[in-house]
Amino acid sequence: MNKLLFHSILCTAICLAGTMLTAQDDTNQQDVDAKFIKGIHNQILTDGECYDWLTELTIDVGARLAGSPGSVKAVEFMELKMNAIGFDKVWTQECKVNYWDRGEKEEVYMTSPRPQRLNALSLGNMIGTNGKVLEAEIIEVQGLDEVDALGEDIVKGKIVFYNRPMDPTQIRTFSAYGGAVDQRVYGASKAAKYGAVAVLVRSMTTRQDDVPHTGTSIYKEGIKQIPAISISTNDANMLSNTLHKEKVSVSIKNNARPLEERTSHSVIGEIKGTEFPNEIILVGGHLDSWDVGAGAHDDGAGCVHSLQVVRTLLELGYKPKRTIRCVMFQNEENGLAGGREYARVSNEKGEYHLAALESDSGGFVPRGFSFEGHADVLKPFYRHVSQWLPLLESYGLQFSTGGSGADIGPLKSQKGLLIGLRPDSQRYFDYHHTDIDRIEAVNKRELELGAAAMTSLIYLIDKYGLQ
Amino acid sequence: MNKLLFHSILCTAICLAGTMLTAQDDTNQQDVDAKFIKGIHNQILTDGECYDWLTELTIDVGARLAGSPGSVKAVEFMELKMNAIGFDKVWTQECKVNYWDRGEKEEVYMTSPRPQRLNALSLGNMIGTNGKVLEAEIIEVQGLDEVDALGEDIVKGKIVFYNRPMDPTQIRTFSAYGGAVDQRVYGASKAAKYGAVAVLVRSMTTRQDDVPHTGTSIYKEGIKQIPAISISTNDANMLSNTLHKEKVSVSIKNNARPLEERTSHSVIGEIKGTEFPNEIILVGGHLDSWDVGAGAHDDGAGCVHSLQVVRTLLELGYKPKRTIRCVMFQNEENGLAGGREYARVSNEKGEYHLAALESDSGGFVPRGFSFEGHADVLKPFYRHVSQWLPLLESYGLQFSTGGSGADIGPLKSQKGLLIGLRPDSQRYFDYHHTDIDRIEAVNKRELELGAAAMTSLIYLIDKYGLQ
Repeated sequence: MNKLLFHSILCTAICLAGTMLTAQDDTNQQDVDAKFIKGIHNQILTDGECYDWLTELTIDVGARLAGSPGSVKAVEFMELKMNAIGFDKVWTQECKVNYWDRGEKEEVYMTSPRPQRLNALSLGNMIGTNGKVLEAEIIEVQGLDEVDALGEDIVKGKIVFYNRPMDPTQIRTFSAYGGAVDQRVYGASKAAKYGAVAVLVRSMTTRQDDVPHTGTSIYKEGIKQIPAISISTNDANMLSNTLHKEKVSVSIKNNARPLEERTSHSVIGEIKGTEFPNEIILVGGHLDSWDVGAGAHDDGAGCVHSLQVVRTLLELGYKPKRTIRCVMFQNEENGLAGGREYARVSNEKGEYHLAALESDSGGFVPRGFSFEGHADVLKPFYRHVSQWLPLLESYGLQFSTGGSGADIGPLKSQKGLLIGLRPDSQRYFDYHHTDIDRIEAVNKRELELGAAAMTSLIYLIDKYGLQ
Repeated sequence: MNKLLFHSILCTAICLAGTMLTAQDDTNQQDVDAKFIKGIHNQILTDGECYDWLTELTIDVGARLAGSPGSVKAVEFMELKMNAIGFDKVWTQECKVNYWDRGEKEEVYMTSPRPQRLNALSLGNMIGTNGKVLEAEIIEVQGLDEVDALGEDIVKGKIVFYNRPMDPTQIRTFSAYGGAVDQRVYGASKAAKYGAVAVLVRSMTTRQDDVPHTGTSIYKEGIKQIPAISISTNDANMLSNTLHKEKVSVSIKNNARPLEERTSHSVIGEIKGTEFPNEIILVGGHLDSWDVGAGAHDDGAGCVHSLQVVRTLLELGYKPKRTIRCVMFQNEENGLAGGREYARVSNEKGEYHLAALESDSGGFVPRGFSFEGHADVLKPFYRHVSQWLPLLESYGLQFSTGGSGADIGPLKSQKGLLIGLRPDSQRYFDYHHTDIDRIEAVNKRELELGAAAMTSLIYLIDKYGLQ
């Protein structure tokens, strides 16, 4: 739907553009731009460093939950990299982040009708059983409404098992995620309201496998906190099949616990613009990850994509007219403190972000960009699109309207253009928030093509602006 | 370039189509078709069996070089599957295939300036050293012309080392493959002409790794046969770097040998058309693979894609107007005997293939289709495209002109439409002709989306024909 709407706007834009520039001007400029964009791709596909950086980040640094020792190491790592790349200025920006600790490995078992260990991960921000064994009968539900319908009589004293799968027929897997993730985010709070003692949540993936997926969860204020655990889709199916025949009990033993706020940092690097230094073009991802795996796709990929954009522009001798700012946001997974603080400080300083591009959908082959923003910036942008799209289509890239990125969301107040990189989404939820989101899950060429796509768009925005 | 041409033809087609049907008719039909195509995707993404079939084919059958015991097993496997799916008729078609045996594992060493084992695979159809050690100095070249330029004085008695890489800056990796594979196919014959004793060929991949890639090679008639070995890209770089400093010798010991022709079979299944049984729509892939790995992407994926097309149409209760024929071609890798024999027999019977769609580019996320054919069929087809493309674009599919598939190439004489599935090509040459082309390299959703794309197009061609 968004795409169709976009196309109709685009058609209008093409007509408008036709009246604004002569055909000759267009052709010359398009030729220059096509060559530069080819040069960007050549540089990254032959000498790109993003895959090596991601290897270092995921292996030498590893998991980096905001506030953890890993995140401190990640901030140092990123400052070093940015300084080596040759930004005009590199700095860190303090923010206060939620901190949460998983404790020892979760022990989750089906105890009745037969013993079987479940592949499980405590959900972020949730309390645990304090190292004691909590055992109860489980009841399966397909969503939050069903818990309301069952009420206290049935829910009290039970473990509520949320088992509505991500819809595999959604072609965009992020839509399927959006249609199921309320169970993970609000399930514990909803079940606790009716006296449940814990919740199990089916992992957010369309795969059938043994890999549990963690992620953030939120307690409503005033509701008693209860443990919340994700289990693998294979285990979820097994429990559900068993429940069709007989009663099932599960035991949970874990040590997860929210701890005091900690101080952490986003990392920022900047190349000052030569003509319009007050127009900032931001490119970024988030530096933090969950505490399992190594955050390779989520969002190491976005971080190294963003570094590569600047590295490549410098390698090609391009002098940005506008200020290019590369931001590695802190705490996206667990509170968005970095993104919020960045926008707060930026607004306080009276800065203006002409455009902000976030990569936080993995290091897969890029399929295009998604745009959102105030009408004042979107309308003139559509005129540019008619010139730019043909330059990018030959790389398999499309434009669509829609969301951008969580970390840049708070910049909406500045009324610039917000952009999300849209890589192919088919494999993203195979790895999202798991122990297997590691460098082995990332294909070097696919990662590089994402960086090249981003660099190409940043080049066009910098060169032409958005008016 | 092809895509641009296609778009301009498409624009004309859109204008023509506008005069042919009323807007109301279009809307109703498009609605029906959109629902059916959504139904195809839903069926395959929830109940598709192609991934399970591919698991069986690659694990229970495994490698299946034409004429080998594995290929006999593969033919039996495919007959059983086709019969179980419910084709009206299933049969095998005999063909005489080249047969070649690798013998024991190759032993290839750099012997001087220091000993180091190389990751190597004998090239298909080539002779070996008959189990003896062949040792000689190597000379590096970047292509066939360079061998001509060096001539007998320099080449005689040496091992020629072809080291021109696939160009990583080509966005379509098949173009990069096309630009380098002459070294593998003709390199041995060219070097032998000037008295070389063997050739080493850099593996056909853009990756830097330890995985050697085999593939077919051809001796020119009257040229003395010499051994031909592919080596991994890491080893190729190591040899090249060493050669910049000093002379390098390599030893080869292998038992590869072409053997006598064998009898093998393609496997064919058919659903008779209800209205136009004499218009055949073919969907297929090739059943044979190389003798290493398990031919998961090449071309197990194409085989199970094709089976899934028919299975899904039957599952949805669709009665084809035209005859749908599913063909698992034999011997694509090593001679194309199956494709040639299929076309010969078909021509002899006076059959007409309205369209033939081959999947032989891997089980990755589908990006569209590539078309070729006689003007008599292409022109009316372009009119249909204007109706069909909007139905497929929302699944990320595009149309382009270009090649189709090797096995269906011999059907050109029937002047129908030849079509190739075009999956994303970025990862294809990571696995092509290697020991790691196994089920683990295939993503279930990506495979399923390829089958759904093919089924959708076959449905449209069957329903509307091409006039």
